[in-house]
Amino acid sequence: MKKMIIGVMGPGTGAKAQDLENAYELGRLIAERGWVLLTGGRNVGVMDAASRGAKAANGLTIGILPTSDKTGISPAVDIPIITDLGNARNNINVLSSDVVVACGMGAGTASEIALALKSDKKVILLTDDREAKAFFSQLSPNHVMLSNSPEAAIGLISPGS
Amino acid sequence: MKKMIIGVMGPGTGAKAQDLENAYELGRLIAERGWVLLTGGRNVGVMDAASRGAKAANGLTIGILPTSDKTGISPAVDIPIITDLGNARNNINVLSSDVVVACGMGAGTASEIALALKSDKKVILLTDDREAKAFFSQLSPNHVMLSNSPEAAIGLISPGS
Amino acid sequence: MKKMIIGVMGPGTGAKAQDLENAYELGRLIAERGWVLLTGGRNVGVMDAASRGAKAANGLTIGILPTSDKTGISPAVDIPIITDLGNARNNINVLSSDVVVACGMGAGTASEIALALKSDKKVILLTDDREAKAFFSQLSPNHVMLSNSPEAAIGLISPGS
Amino acid sequence: MKKMIIGVMGPGTGAKAQDLENAYELGRLIAERGWVLLTGGRNVGVMDAASRGAKAANGLTIGILPTSDKTGISPAVDIPIITDLGNARNNINVLSSDVVVACGMGAGTASEIALALKSDKKVILLTDDREAKAFFSQLSPNHVMLSNSPEAAIGLISPGS
Repeated sequence: MKKMIIGVMGPGTGAKAQDLENAYELGRLIAERGWVLLTGGRNVGVMDAASRGAKAANGLTIGILPTSDKTGISPAVDIPIITDLGNARNNINVLSSDVVVACGMGAGTASEIALALKSDKKVILLTDDREAKAFFSQLSPNHVMLSNSPEAAIGLISPGS
Repeated sequence: MKKMIIGVMGPGTGAKAQDLENAYELGRLIAERGWVLLTGGRNVGVMDAASRGAKAANGLTIGILPTSDKTGISPAVDIPIITDLGNARNNINVLSSDVVVACGMGAGTASEIALALKSDKKVILLTDDREAKAFFSQLSPNHVMLSNSPEAAIGLISPGS
Repeated sequence: MKKMIIGVMGPGTGAKAQDLENAYELGRLIAERGWVLLTGGRNVGVMDAASRGAKAANGLTIGILPTSDKTGISPAVDIPIITDLGNARNNINVLSSDVVVACGMGAGTASEIALALKSDKKVILLTDDREAKAFFSQLSPNHVMLSNSPEAAIGLISPGS
Repeated sequence: MKKMIIGVMGPGTGAKAQDLENAYELGRLIAERGWVLLTGGRNVGVMDAASRGAKAANGLTIGILPTSDKTGISPAVDIPIITDLGNARNNINVLSSDVVVACGMGAGTASEIALALKSDKKVILLTDDREAKAFFSQLSPNHVMLSNSPEAAIGLISPGS
């Protein structure tokens, strides 16, 4: 059986300190459970922190890059997928993830959540952004779940794990 | 000088009666001002209603289709662009529009708004969805504008027109 | 009925003088017949020459740009479609064209011909590249046609016109 | 250091028996050298055979799927990347590969070779198609190499290995 792929999406340069801490811990916990981590692959923000967390626990990390080569890739990405699609690659991020965890908030992250919901993917929000939680929860009540910590988010991915 | 291209984005099969009415009127007003209308091109919902409105005023209509051929295209689309990109085509919709008007709300529409904001496009919301208005206004206060009618939305595109 | 869209594909900076002359004439003849011209939209090579030819005959020109904004667009493009997809936009070029004319040869042009054939599109070659003609003719004998002049190419699009 | 990613591209349902045999052996040899195999991910033709060969030697296999879900995926793919891009995903195949090996020939394969050459990737042809070899060799003499067997192709990837 193929391993579960968990996508962790969140801001790049605009990430807050708490988002980075959460992303690192999400990456670590995902790797510990034997799952594969998928991110947007760049060397900034939530993508980079989650990938570093996963590598700290010997996980496998995939990065779906928006660029035409490996410029700006996180050193913690094992498998770089080079798309040259700009933000259109956000749809690949979510389609390739069995579950999406949104860690923090921004325009790019909001696009990934919305694209995930459009394709009926399960999305777990880990953010203190009230308006985001209110909006996405009513947009797709059956697919959006809220969490307050990386541990809680992981618990929502697979309750029994 | 190239003509202004105005993107009208909104739900397909999930559009409400009010959204359809607004979309038709938006299309009509856009065409009257000599602008080009761009939509997602399908024969349902806001895309179709806006395109029909524009044709009623002899406008030019572009449809950016997610499919691999013209199946399901709105008969009111003059210029079909066939992308075969699924929802990734949403990024083309917003990049190709000088201004984006979101008419109604849904997951696909939310992705288009978020992608537009990610690329610093001006987005005008025409919806009664309070959570959407609260979320996007705080996400990008300098690029999001609210309107209560098609006429108000058109006025925000180009105040003097 | 929607107007026919004819795609003219060919080298950018690597185009030969003869390719540019042919492209200009193709654009002119396409516009004269009332068809819409579609190209890759940039201000170089075959794309630019064909678009200028079409505008000289008051045609309508669409440009499918690989970039994220209008930088580098041909001034002869009426309808710019901004894809930010790099060379992946080549698939949109051919899917959106009812018939593809390849004017000259290069790696990008070869990719467009091959993608067109993969989608069972009719492709007309206007080039003196013997190896290209031999290769594509045997790859897809039912979809590839050879021409020796812009007039001959136009004749192959629609024999009776 | 990241592992080398070798892309093996070739026909799906149209693959010949010799292509399938070569693809299986290419996959096996790639895995034996500790490289990662990347293919178009479907359960037919060269993609499937190469992935099975790599798994037989305990390699890691990536599949870049054109579809919107895992329908039709090769069971020998470890890491499915779901693009929903149709043939536009061919550009991701080649951009994500450090070296491309074309095993057999067809319209899709030709598009991948051409896209690879457009991005200055090294392409190794393993095919008995004379016209293909003549065309691509003159199109890009510095990036195209010819081989007569899987072993020879592997030798061209990394002469000292």
